[in-house]
Amino acid sequence: MAEENDQAEPELEREEDVYALNRQAVARIIYAVDVADQAQLLRELSELHVADIADLLEQINAFDRRRLIELYSSEFDGDILSELDEALRQEVIGLLPPDVLAGAVRDLDSDDVVDLVEDLEDHEQEAILSALEAGDRIAVQQSLTYPEYSAGRLMQREVVMAPEHWNVGEAIDFLRNQEDLPEQFYHIILVDPKLRPVGNITLGKLMAARREVLLSDLVEETFHVFPVAQDEEDVAYAFNQYHLISAPVVDENERLVGVITIDDAMAVLDEEHEEDILRLAGVGEGSLSDRVIDTTRQRLPWLAVNLVTAILASLVIAQFEAAITQLVALAVLMPIVASMGGNAGTQSLTVAVRAIATKDLTGSNVWRFIRREVLVGLVNGVIFAVVMGLVGVMWFGGPELGYVIGAAMVINLVVAGLAGTVIPVILDRIGIDPALASGAFVTTVTDVVGFFAFLGLAAAVLL
Amino acid sequence: MAEENDQAEPELEREEDVYALNRQAVARIIYAVDVADQAQLLRELSELHVADIADLLEQINAFDRRRLIELYSSEFDGDILSELDEALRQEVIGLLPPDVLAGAVRDLDSDDVVDLVEDLEDHEQEAILSALEAGDRIAVQQSLTYPEYSAGRLMQREVVMAPEHWNVGEAIDFLRNQEDLPEQFYHIILVDPKLRPVGNITLGKLMAARREVLLSDLVEETFHVFPVAQDEEDVAYAFNQYHLISAPVVDENERLVGVITIDDAMAVLDEEHEEDILRLAGVGEGSLSDRVIDTTRQRLPWLAVNLVTAILASLVIAQFEAAITQLVALAVLMPIVASMGGNAGTQSLTVAVRAIATKDLTGSNVWRFIRREVLVGLVNGVIFAVVMGLVGVMWFGGPELGYVIGAAMVINLVVAGLAGTVIPVILDRIGIDPALASGAFVTTVTDVVGFFAFLGLAAAVLL
Repeated sequence: MAEENDQAEPELEREEDVYALNRQAVARIIYAVDVADQAQLLRELSELHVADIADLLEQINAFDRRRLIELYSSEFDGDILSELDEALRQEVIGLLPPDVLAGAVRDLDSDDVVDLVEDLEDHEQEAILSALEAGDRIAVQQSLTYPEYSAGRLMQREVVMAPEHWNVGEAIDFLRNQEDLPEQFYHIILVDPKLRPVGNITLGKLMAARREVLLSDLVEETFHVFPVAQDEEDVAYAFNQYHLISAPVVDENERLVGVITIDDAMAVLDEEHEEDILRLAGVGEGSLSDRVIDTTRQRLPWLAVNLVTAILASLVIAQFEAAITQLVALAVLMPIVASMGGNAGTQSLTVAVRAIATKDLTGSNVWRFIRREVLVGLVNGVIFAVVMGLVGVMWFGGPELGYVIGAAMVINLVVAGLAGTVIPVILDRIGIDPALASGAFVTTVTDVVGFFAFLGLAAAVLL
Repeated sequence: MAEENDQAEPELEREEDVYALNRQAVARIIYAVDVADQAQLLRELSELHVADIADLLEQINAFDRRRLIELYSSEFDGDILSELDEALRQEVIGLLPPDVLAGAVRDLDSDDVVDLVEDLEDHEQEAILSALEAGDRIAVQQSLTYPEYSAGRLMQREVVMAPEHWNVGEAIDFLRNQEDLPEQFYHIILVDPKLRPVGNITLGKLMAARREVLLSDLVEETFHVFPVAQDEEDVAYAFNQYHLISAPVVDENERLVGVITIDDAMAVLDEEHEEDILRLAGVGEGSLSDRVIDTTRQRLPWLAVNLVTAILASLVIAQFEAAITQLVALAVLMPIVASMGGNAGTQSLTVAVRAIATKDLTGSNVWRFIRREVLVGLVNGVIFAVVMGLVGVMWFGGPELGYVIGAAMVINLVVAGLAGTVIPVILDRIGIDPALASGAFVTTVTDVVGFFAFLGLAAAVLL
C-alpha cells in the first residue's frame, strides 16, 4: 500500500526533515486504519509524541481521521486535543465518545482546558466542563471571564508559592508534604501576607542553599508580574525580551492568581508570527485542513480589495488612452514602473511592520527610519532609472522614452519608500494592525503614482 | 529638550505599548548625554533591563551612541552585548575600552560568548577570548568548531548531571556541595557510565521526592537529545513542538557536551521567523540602524530580479502591440488580470512557505494541498470573472470584452494556485529556502500568464 502510493505520486518530501512526520510511518498507520488493525494502530501511535499525533490528524483526510479516532479512542490522550489546530478540534471532539472526552480533559492543566473550551459552542463547552472536578471547573470558568487573548486565559492556576518570611528549610519541607505539585514548575513565587507576588526563586538556587537561608535572599534579579488583562502578545514579547521562564499573574488587587510558563509564551509568539506573515499576504486565519469553500471565503475579501485598487489604477491609465494610442510603447513599459514601485514599497512596509511588532520602531527613531527608507528609494530609483533609461533607448530607440521612464522610476521608488513607512506607522497609531491593511494601501499608492508619473510625463514630454 | 522634541515632531507612538521604550525616558537619557551628566545617566539606565538598554542603543543615532557609551562604560554589562543587534555589536565593541570589554565578557555564559564572538573579525575575537579564564576560553573555542547555526553553537557547556544509579539524597547533597552551579538550570541530566544522557529530571520532582528514591524512577516522559551538528532551526522547532524546557546536546560519540534551554530556542524561533518574513518581501538581513548605503545594497538585488521579471512581462505585452493600438481598452484593463493573479499567487505561496516551515506540509498531504489551492483559484477566478465581466460591459459596453477578461481571470487564478504551491514545494525539495525565491518565480508566472491570456484571447476573439 505504502509502496503503491510512492509510485503513484512523485516524492515531494525533503530527506533532511528530521521532525516532519515520516511518510512511511503515516502510510503504515493509514494501512492499519484501512484494515481496521487496532493492535497495529496502537503500536504505531504509541511511538509518537502527542504533538505528532495531532499533526498526523491534521495531515490525513477527514475520512481516515474519523476511522482512526474510532479505533484509537480508548487510548485518546487529552493533550492531543490541546495540540490540535483549532479548526479541527471541534470535529475531533465531536467524534470522541462522551466518556473518552471526559477522561481526556480531566488530566489537563487548567490553562489547556481553557484553551480547549474557549472556542467551543455552549453545549460542547458544557459537556467538557461537567467532566471536570468541581474545583477545576470553577477555576476554568473563572479563567473564561478574562478577556480573550489575555494573560488570564494563558496562565495556569496551579501555582507554587511561599510566604516571604520563610527560609529554605521551611520551603523544602512544604514541597515534600504537598500532595499534588504541578507537573512542571520552575520557580517558587514569594508572596506577601496579602498574597501579592514579591519575588521568584529558582528551584536550583533553593536546592543549593542551606536550610536556614531566608527565601527573600534568593530572589531573582529579573522579576515581571503580568496583570490578568494584559494582552498575550505583550506577555510573549516580555518573555522573549527578558528571558523569563515563568512569571506570576495578578488580578486587579495585585493578588497572585496564576502563573505563565515560557512554553505557552513561545506558542503565542509562534502564533503571532503566523498571523503577521499571513496577514501581510492577505490571507485570513485558516488551516491546511480547511475545505475549499472555507479557504475561498478567507481569501476572497483580500482579492476584492485588490480588485478595487487595480481598477483604480486602471482608471488612471484610462486618462491616457489617447497617449497610448499614439505611442503603444507606453502600454508595453508602464507595468514595469508600477511593479518596481510595488516591490520597493513592500520591502519598506515589511521592515516597518516587523519593527513595529518587535517594538524596535518607536517615537525615538521613527523619523530617522522614514528618512532612511526615502533615501534608499531615491538611490535605488536613480540606479534603476539609468538601467531602464538604457533599456528604453535600446528597445525603442531615441532617448526621450528613456528619460521619461527613468524619471517615473525615481518618483515611484521615493514614493514607495515614503508610503511603505508612513502608512504602517499611521495604521499602528490609530489602532489597526499594520500587517493586515498596509499592503493594499501601499500598492495602491505605488500603482497609481507609477502609472500617473510615467504616462503623465510621457504625454507632456513626448506627444 | 524633551518637550521641544515633542512639539517639533508629531507623536507617532501608540499609547498602549507597555514594553516599547518610553519616549520621555529616552529623551531624558539623551539629555543627560548632551550635558554629559554621568550620574543622571547611570540613574536612568539602572532602571532599565539590559535588553532594553540594548534596544536603546539601537534606536538612538551613532553620535549619541558613542557619547552614551563613553559615559556609561564603567557600568557596562556584558549581557548588553548579547542582546544587541549583530549589526551594532561590532561598533559598540570597538567603542569599549579593552578592560571594560574584558570584564563585560567574563561574566557571560559560554553560549553567549560564542554568540558574541562568532561574527567578529579575528583580532577582535582574539581580544575577547584572551579576556576569558583558560577553562572558559577552551570551551568557547571548542564551541566555535561546530558548524554555524548548529546546536553546538547554541548550547551552553555548563551542565548539571548525575550518574543514573544515584538516588535523590545523593543528588541533593551533590548540588549543595557544588561551588558554582549555572545561573539557570531546570533539569538534572542523568548520564550512563559513558557520559551518555539517559533522562531528564525536573528539579520540582527531585525536591518533592524522598531521599531514598532512585533518580531513574523520576525521569520525564518526554526526553529529546540533540546532536551537536543539528540545525538550530530544527532544535527550535522541537522545543516548540514538544514543549521542552531544556535538553542535552551530545557529540558524535553520544557523550553529553552541553545543554540548550528554551529561552535560547525561543530566540532562534523569533530570528527564523524574522528571516522568513523579510525574505518573502525580498529584504535581506539587515537592521533598523543600518545606514542608507547598506540598506540600498540589501534591497537592490531583489529589485533587480523584479526588473528582469517585469521586462519579461513587458515582452509579452509587446507581442500584442497591434491589438492594443486597435483597442486601447486592452491596455487599460490588462494590469487588473495580472495584479489579481499576483495577489492570489502570493496568498497560496505564503501559506505554503509557512506550512513548510512548520512542517505541516509533508508528503502525506502535499497533493491534497495543491489540489485545494487550485480549486480555490478556480472558484475565486469564476467569482471575479463574473464581477469583471460586468465591469467590462458597463465600462466599455458590449459583452465580448467582459467574456475575455473573465476567461483570463479564471485562467490566471488557477495558474496562481498551482504556481503558488508547486514552486515553493519544489524549491524546498531541491534545498533552496522557499521564502527566499518563490515570490519572484510566482509573480513572473502570474504576470506572463495574465498578460498573455488576456491579450491573446482578446486578439483571437475581438479583432
